[in-house]
Amino acid sequence: MGAAVFGAGGGGDPLIGSLMAGKAIADHGPARLVDLDELDDDDLILPAAMVGAPTVMGEKFLSGDEGSRIRERIENELGRKVAAYSSAELGGVNGVIPVTWAAIDGLPIADCDLMGRAFPELQMTTAVLAGVDINPVVMTDERGNIVSFKTCTPEWAEALVRTVVGAMGGEASMCLYPMTVAQAKEAAVPRSMSRAIEVGRLLLEADDDPVGALCQAVDGFALVTGKVVDVDRQTTEGFAKGSAVIEGVGPDSDRLLRMEFQNENAVLIEDGKVLASVPDIITAVDIHTARPIVTEQLRYGQRVSIVALPCDPVWRSEKALALAGPQAFGYDISYVPVEEIHD
Amino acid sequence: MGAAVFGAGGGGDPLIGSLMAGKAIADHGPARLVDLDELDDDDLILPAAMVGAPTVMGEKFLSGDEGSRIRERIENELGRKVAAYSSAELGGVNGVIPVTWAAIDGLPIADCDLMGRAFPELQMTTAVLAGVDINPVVMTDERGNIVSFKTCTPEWAEALVRTVVGAMGGEASMCLYPMTVAQAKEAAVPRSMSRAIEVGRLLLEADDDPVGALCQAVDGFALVTGKVVDVDRQTTEGFAKGSAVIEGVGPDSDRLLRMEFQNENAVLIEDGKVLASVPDIITAVDIHTARPIVTEQLRYGQRVSIVALPCDPVWRSEKALALAGPQAFGYDISYVPVEEIHD
Repeated sequence: MGAAVFGAGGGGDPLIGSLMAGKAIADHGPARLVDLDELDDDDLILPAAMVGAPTVMGEKFLSGDEGSRIRERIENELGRKVAAYSSAELGGVNGVIPVTWAAIDGLPIADCDLMGRAFPELQMTTAVLAGVDINPVVMTDERGNIVSFKTCTPEWAEALVRTVVGAMGGEASMCLYPMTVAQAKEAAVPRSMSRAIEVGRLLLEADDDPVGALCQAVDGFALVTGKVVDVDRQTTEGFAKGSAVIEGVGPDSDRLLRMEFQNENAVLIEDGKVLASVPDIITAVDIHTARPIVTEQLRYGQRVSIVALPCDPVWRSEKALALAGPQAFGYDISYVPVEEIHD
Repeated sequence: MGAAVFGAGGGGDPLIGSLMAGKAIADHGPARLVDLDELDDDDLILPAAMVGAPTVMGEKFLSGDEGSRIRERIENELGRKVAAYSSAELGGVNGVIPVTWAAIDGLPIADCDLMGRAFPELQMTTAVLAGVDINPVVMTDERGNIVSFKTCTPEWAEALVRTVVGAMGGEASMCLYPMTVAQAKEAAVPRSMSRAIEVGRLLLEADDDPVGALCQAVDGFALVTGKVVDVDRQTTEGFAKGSAVIEGVGPDSDRLLRMEFQNENAVLIEDGKVLASVPDIITAVDIHTARPIVTEQLRYGQRVSIVALPCDPVWRSEKALALAGPQAFGYDISYVPVEEIHD
C-alpha cells in the first residue's frame, strides 16, 4: 500500500501485488530487504517490473515462474549471476513484484527503485538520467514466451516492448536496466522500498485522520476532498489512459477538478489551473482510510482525497523534466513544484 | 527472378533483391552455393529472411549489416559458429537475401529453403512439418535494434515477430529455424536455390513464347491471359493483403478472374470456381517476357499471364495442408492439386 501511494495511481492494484507476494512468501519463505551498502559494489541487481495496462493484471494472472525464467535468461546472456532483485518502479504491484520473485528464488531485494514513484514509460527512469544502459531488456508471459531486446535507445525499448505487450495480451513480466550495485548507488533512488514500507505501516496503524497523517509523513498536500463523478478510461496500446472528474464535498463543495492519467496520474486541473503535475506524485486515496486507489479502480461515487507530494529531487533538473515532465506527457505547461503551488 | 516465380507474388521485389545482392557481391566478392552434401552434417545453417510487408521494402532500405548482426547474435546465443546461410523462403528478395548476407560475411549458401515457395507466416515451413524448433528467432532493423525470441510455438513466433515488425516500420531482417545440415536434410526443400537459378536463366534466355517455356520448365499451367482491371491492396499489420481482378484478352476474352493475396497469392477464382489455391504456387507473369510480377507491383492495365504450378509434394499431406492449405488462409474450400484441376 505504501508503494501504491508513491505509484501515483499506477503500477498495478496493491491487492494483486500482495496476493502474489503473500503466496510466494508462504511457499518459499520471506525475502530479505537489503541496503545497497550491504551488497558488494560488483554485485548484479536485476530491476523487475510488470509492464502493460494495470487493468489487465486482475484478469490475466501470472504463472509464478516469470521471475526465475527472466533471471536465468539474463544470467545466460550476461554470463554472471544475479545477486539481488530490485523494484524498477514503486507502485501497487511493481513495488512488490521483486518481493515475489526474490522469495521464489531465495535472493535478497535491494532497497531502491529507478523512479521513486511509478511512470508509464520505460525510459522515464533515474537510470537514464545517470546514463545506465537499459539493455538487455528481457520480457516473458505466463505461457513461457521469452523476448530479449538490445535496443538503440530506451525510447526504442519502450516502443518495442509496448507492442510485444499488446501481442502477449496487454501485460507481461520484465527486467530492465540490469546494473551493478556501484551503478545503482548513482543511478537508483535509494531506500525507496523501506520508505514505502514505513508509509504502508502508517496507513495500517493510523486511525485518527489518516489522510492528514499520510500528508505529514510524505510532505504531501490534500488538494481536494470529493466524489468521483465521472471516469473515462481506455485500455489501449498497453496503457490505461483517461481522466476522472472529482466534485468537491463538504468544505470543498462547488469545486470541480479533473485528474488525467496514463497508467499514472499526470495532472490535476481546476478551472484551467494546474494544481499538481508530473513528475510530482498525484495519488487518489480513500477519504476515510487514506489507502491509495489505483487508476483502474477509480469509479463513480467513490469518496476520495487527492493527495499530491513532491517527487524525488532528482526529477526536478531540466534534463529530468525533459524526460518525465508535463511536456513529455503532451501537456504544454511549465512544471511548478507542488510545494511552491500550495505553500 | 527465378525465385520470384516460386515466390507466388510474395517475398519481395526481385529488383530490390538483385540490387542488394549485386552491391554485396561487388563489395565483397561472390557467395558460393553449396549442396547440403558438401557440408558436414553437424554444420550450423542459418535460414535468412526479410519479414514484413513487401510494399515497404522499396521505401525503407537496409543498412547492409543486418546479416552480420543477426549472425553474431545467434553465434553468441548458441555458442557456436554459423557455417552457411540459407534461404528461409524462395521469393524475389528472400530467395536472394542469403546471397547478400553470405557475400558480406564470406560464408557459403546452402542450396535449400524451408518452403519451396514463399508463404506469409513463419510457421508455414517444412521445418515445422519435420519438427525442427523455430527458436531462437532473431530480428533486427536498419537502426541496429535487436530482438531475440524464444517462443512456445511457431505460431507465437509469428504473432510476436509480426507485431515487432510493425513497430520497426513494417519491415525487418531475421533468421529463424537455425538447424544443422543433418536436420536440413530432413527439414528443408533441397536444391530449391539451384532450381530457381535455372528458371531465372531460362527467363533471361527465352525469346520465343517465354510463358510457354516457363510452364514447361516448372510443370505449370498458364490459366489466363488478361489485363489487370482492379487492384485492392492494404498494407496492414505487417502484411500486404488484397486482391486483383484480371479480365481476359485475346482467346480469353469474356473471362473475369479474381486473385486474392496475403503477401503471396493464395487463390485464383473464376465464376465461383477455384482454378488454383495454396499450397500450389500462383504467380502473375508478364505476358511478353514471363517475368514474375510480385503482388506489390500489380497495377491497373498490366498485361499478365497467371501461371499456377504444383507446390513441392511435401505440402500435400494432410498435416501440411492444415498448416498452409486454403483453410489456413481462411478459405472454406478443399485443396485440389492444380494438375488435377487442369490436366
